[in-house]
Amino acid sequence: MRTDIDYAYELDAADPLAHFRERFVIADPDLIYMDGNSLGRLPRASIDVAADLVQRQWGERLIRGWNEGWWAASERIGAKIARLIGAQPDEVIVADSTSVNLFKLAVAALRARPDRTAIITDDLNFPSDLYILQGIADLLGSRHRIEVVPSPDGIHGPEETIKARLSGDTALLTLSHVVFKSGFLYDMAAITAAAHQAGALTLWDLSHSVGSVPVDLNGAGADLAIGCTYKYLNGGPGSPAFLYVRRDLQEQLFNPISGWWSQGRPFDFGLDYQPVSGMRRFLSGTQPLLSTALIEPAVDMLLQAGIDALRAKSQRQTAYLVALWEALLAPLGFTLNSPRDPSRRGSHISLGHAEGLRIDLALINEMNVLPDFRAPDNIRLGIAPLYTSFADIHETIRRLAEVVTNKLYKKYDRAPEVT
Amino acid sequence: MRTDIDYAYELDAADPLAHFRERFVIADPDLIYMDGNSLGRLPRASIDVAADLVQRQWGERLIRGWNEGWWAASERIGAKIARLIGAQPDEVIVADSTSVNLFKLAVAALRARPDRTAIITDDLNFPSDLYILQGIADLLGSRHRIEVVPSPDGIHGPEETIKARLSGDTALLTLSHVVFKSGFLYDMAAITAAAHQAGALTLWDLSHSVGSVPVDLNGAGADLAIGCTYKYLNGGPGSPAFLYVRRDLQEQLFNPISGWWSQGRPFDFGLDYQPVSGMRRFLSGTQPLLSTALIEPAVDMLLQAGIDALRAKSQRQTAYLVALWEALLAPLGFTLNSPRDPSRRGSHISLGHAEGLRIDLALINEMNVLPDFRAPDNIRLGIAPLYTSFADIHETIRRLAEVVTNKLYKKYDRAPEVT
Repeated sequence: MRTDIDYAYELDAADPLAHFRERFVIADPDLIYMDGNSLGRLPRASIDVAADLVQRQWGERLIRGWNEGWWAASERIGAKIARLIGAQPDEVIVADSTSVNLFKLAVAALRARPDRTAIITDDLNFPSDLYILQGIADLLGSRHRIEVVPSPDGIHGPEETIKARLSGDTALLTLSHVVFKSGFLYDMAAITAAAHQAGALTLWDLSHSVGSVPVDLNGAGADLAIGCTYKYLNGGPGSPAFLYVRRDLQEQLFNPISGWWSQGRPFDFGLDYQPVSGMRRFLSGTQPLLSTALIEPAVDMLLQAGIDALRAKSQRQTAYLVALWEALLAPLGFTLNSPRDPSRRGSHISLGHAEGLRIDLALINEMNVLPDFRAPDNIRLGIAPLYTSFADIHETIRRLAEVVTNKLYKKYDRAPEVT
Repeated sequence: MRTDIDYAYELDAADPLAHFRERFVIADPDLIYMDGNSLGRLPRASIDVAADLVQRQWGERLIRGWNEGWWAASERIGAKIARLIGAQPDEVIVADSTSVNLFKLAVAALRARPDRTAIITDDLNFPSDLYILQGIADLLGSRHRIEVVPSPDGIHGPEETIKARLSGDTALLTLSHVVFKSGFLYDMAAITAAAHQAGALTLWDLSHSVGSVPVDLNGAGADLAIGCTYKYLNGGPGSPAFLYVRRDLQEQLFNPISGWWSQGRPFDFGLDYQPVSGMRRFLSGTQPLLSTALIEPAVDMLLQAGIDALRAKSQRQTAYLVALWEALLAPLGFTLNSPRDPSRRGSHISLGHAEGLRIDLALINEMNVLPDFRAPDNIRLGIAPLYTSFADIHETIRRLAEVVTNKLYKKYDRAPEVT
């Protein structure tokens, strides 16, 4: 494969989605942003949405805003996200954080399988998901055991082992659809089918797949899902998460955090909790409207681009990155910590290196590239097909090679603490 | 007392806090906004904060924002709120919704009193608080009973009955410091002392007192508290709530929603949950930064005004409103559904009327007043001492009288549904 920059420009020129990049704020043209899988870029449209929300809706309409779109925002935006993940509009709602939503749905699932004691997950799952499960097991009297199935190589999900572990005692199987470190993509349909054969419920964390990988929750018959909106959905820092409950399960499951937004007629202010029907049942308290509203502009763009076109571009781009790694970085000691098969990975690529953390720091501070880093040595490069260009990828690899070739990482000897 | 508008203008002219009103957006000078106890007005400074957050921090700084203030925002703003509620800076943190925070702290409290089965509250508490308690009791195996002590008159809190009900079996006493409907203000110190004498923990909901009534959590020895930021703290629609845990309890209590923001070293991505020390232990997932950051401007103003000066003005204003009610509205069939004693009420006044809902609708649609309405017949008038003027209060009463005198409510015959 050609490794020259002109080839990257040719690929960009032939990219049918390239024009979407102009709809994002690119303040520093020299900065290469490879962290859209952690915090998506700012859509230009979101600037006006934020200003309207603050100045007109809040400032002028005041409390009337609740009847003029705020109350409905969680459902309205959820219905749009549903189209990205193969769900019905009334199966998805936006609320709270991914961790809080996992808590709500995992507790609900375990209570729907009262005679079963096993929760199955893997060691590639996002740690917060494991912490939440541990907290739940503790809360429910340590009646449940959490089986953390190990990955064979730290890269690929242990699909066959998971299937073999499923049994009549499995209450819940919960996995990240695309795993945060390596980018491995689970076969949702096959795993869900196996779980259902054992009578277990499934809960998928879509944080790293929604918006970059086609998800077909209905097609897979998935029971429950949660996901993040500040990565490929570009909702802004800490924008609320979403949750999905298959329609026929909505009446069977109960939200343990039974606040007034899940109450049948909340403005009657009755003293007894009467859960509403439908997805609002899985809300709890008042939702942060500013952070919620900013999810919508990029979701609209993703729907306009089409998830299949986004996936096609993302696969071309991860393949391009892997080819450049092989040609230019493997000789410098970088390993590929993501699946080689493009059909088994999401939209980010992890590269390992013995000097990974120092290289990451040099890349940020000397080369104006913003990648992501995941301990112990993963430089995680996120490709957001709405705005990442082939030239971005080429330049990232070139600058990475320069950091190592010119030993620019030598001056960095420790990680800055997050403060 | 004088009921002419000139007297209102004289009171405004003599008000040392009057100048703060200019620091809020007042888009329609004819609109009388009496719902700052439900959604506070937009501070002018928040327009720039929002624009900077979206355009510079998110748009330009991108993921670096987390190290440049976002990660610290929950604690930084919590420390400021602490100064309004008599707490130490490291005892308060901003996160999630009031309902989610109540869930976390009530579960933690019940688990800290494992041999006790009673939760005491009252029927004036905000219904969401009761729903959350009901959900918890159900989740924990119906081992707990919730004693909802009734108010003697629907206005005043049943303080003496609550004290009499406390026993060696009481795990938790939880009340709204100022109750949402009548505005009754509990004696936090006396109630907390009685609870402690029985060995129970206390959890105060400060949603309707923070920012308008002096709160002295440390002085009262209060154990736990939660509160809302979109009322008197003017954080914007659905801005995240706050929670308080007395310092010596922080290490003894465990957050049941044990997500990664409560993990000791979250960016090590270890697989086992190790709760951090301090208030971060009571966080769960990623916080909505845009909605969080907008809490700060008005909290700064409140601190500048001083909570004692705010309380003094608020008491003068509720007394003025009650005097106008007595002179002008009582003859028209309005009842006072708030305590008459200014020292036993917060900053809103509820007026009842047999035609309450229709009057409310006419007030909004015909008279350009935005009050609040709480079923079955309460017109709730919120006074936000940072920006409510005496003229606002006078004009509200005048327009209310006009609605009834001219029977303007007759054309309204049903409530619009919140959609």
